[in-house]
Amino acid sequence: MVEYDTVAIVGVGLIGGSIGLALRQRNLAQKIIGVGRRQASLDIARKVGAIDHGVTSLANGVAQAQLIIIATPVDTIAERVVQVAAICPATSLITDVGSTKEAIVAAVDAGLASRRSGPRFVGSHPLAGDHRTGPEHARADLFDGRTVVVTPTELTRTAAMTEVSGFWQAMGAIVQSMPPARHDAALAITSHLPHLAAVALTATTPNEFLHLTASGWRDTTRIASGDPKLWQAILTANRQHVLDALEIMGQTLGNIRESLEQGDHESLLTILEAAARKKRDRDALGD
Amino acid sequence: MVEYDTVAIVGVGLIGGSIGLALRQRNLAQKIIGVGRRQASLDIARKVGAIDHGVTSLANGVAQAQLIIIATPVDTIAERVVQVAAICPATSLITDVGSTKEAIVAAVDAGLASRRSGPRFVGSHPLAGDHRTGPEHARADLFDGRTVVVTPTELTRTAAMTEVSGFWQAMGAIVQSMPPARHDAALAITSHLPHLAAVALTATTPNEFLHLTASGWRDTTRIASGDPKLWQAILTANRQHVLDALEIMGQTLGNIRESLEQGDHESLLTILEAAARKKRDRDALGD
Repeated sequence: MVEYDTVAIVGVGLIGGSIGLALRQRNLAQKIIGVGRRQASLDIARKVGAIDHGVTSLANGVAQAQLIIIATPVDTIAERVVQVAAICPATSLITDVGSTKEAIVAAVDAGLASRRSGPRFVGSHPLAGDHRTGPEHARADLFDGRTVVVTPTELTRTAAMTEVSGFWQAMGAIVQSMPPARHDAALAITSHLPHLAAVALTATTPNEFLHLTASGWRDTTRIASGDPKLWQAILTANRQHVLDALEIMGQTLGNIRESLEQGDHESLLTILEAAARKKRDRDALGD
Repeated sequence: MVEYDTVAIVGVGLIGGSIGLALRQRNLAQKIIGVGRRQASLDIARKVGAIDHGVTSLANGVAQAQLIIIATPVDTIAERVVQVAAICPATSLITDVGSTKEAIVAAVDAGLASRRSGPRFVGSHPLAGDHRTGPEHARADLFDGRTVVVTPTELTRTAAMTEVSGFWQAMGAIVQSMPPARHDAALAITSHLPHLAAVALTATTPNEFLHLTASGWRDTTRIASGDPKLWQAILTANRQHVLDALEIMGQTLGNIRESLEQGDHESLLTILEAAARKKRDRDALGD
């Protein structure tokens, strides 16, 4: 079943490349066009089979596409969507894969507000990724069984929601719709805060103790090696929610410190037990 | 090459059980005796092949053993070592696998101070483990290529150090000798702090957001499901070092918060880049 004649992926990194591989593996597109700034990345994306053609011109890349996915860093997505909407077919659907949503969908709504018709946009965020970057690490199964949050606004039509949901479901994902602000508040805790905890742990560990780390440290700090520029943009885009999340975690760490300081074994045990239970409950849900 | 006639393992959980499996796989013991309080655990340990016999009497278990490994929770180790030293052969070597060392080796030295000869003790800590517990999760390769820290004191003789190092090397581990206090300061940062960060992240995540977690959250919180009682004992035994580690991480989190609050992109990027570099450097060292 081929669903799209032409799909354009703007930004063929790990996520963009994985979308291409999944589209191909699931036979969802006749032609996949990758749009990027660097020919070298486009060549790799083509070599791994993520795209059929790689172009550096946005206009050429999206001119024939029924579906356009913006997979660039979060601080460039809104601008890219508005540019694409001005040059792609009027019946096309545009979505993105940004890790933050509120600022992006607001900027897109503002950028497209003057239009009465034309391409439709719905914001998306697949909860899937890797600390490695680049199309060479792309995987066809990256979205398999994963949650994709879609974030409609007041301007989003039902038909566009249906279409974007259908796309992600065809990619193997589970689609969940949420208001953009709630998405950002949730992800500040479930994704951006873990990143900062991993970074803080890594920063706290002196070089001379690095050889005394084992699997606990390794896993807890895994995501600290994620692309610093991408993360700087994500944290900045979700600034207030991340600050709130840091505040809550600071309180929890404060409670732990107090229990330890006061030798309050019961209270410390209660905190550890509650966390172990919640973690096991989450694990039981599966991926 | 059989090195020991009889080895006794006191406490046959994940670590004790893995020692038994490794001894057997590497043909290092004629007979492996497990000592435990609960017959059910001993039965599992025997079933998975970690021990030949399981006994609930400490005296019976260690009477013939040339090597005795105490693999009980940290708050019981010192007492168990002193008990064992009173009943095992005078030529035996006793070691432990506790995650903290300073309080344990000091209590053992005090407990054995009146003796002029008899069994020798050297504290050990294999930097290997799992958030799962029990002999059913034991693995013969748990110590393969892992670091084991041994912590001699003023009372430790060279021959005992040589013997305990030889034991761990025969188990496939890399042995490193450190003063007990330095071990505890290092592990507060490399092991105990990651545990508290994982616990704090888990505690901070509301139940209604648990389904919005992905691989980053999963790995960063993996160890939070570790046995709460074991961890309460470890944190309590290493209280001051853990409080110091929490203080340093609090400062790092404070720096991150400040950069975000002030919109200081450069300083935030610098923190993220330094952590990513250090994490990649550590990963490059291998396990």
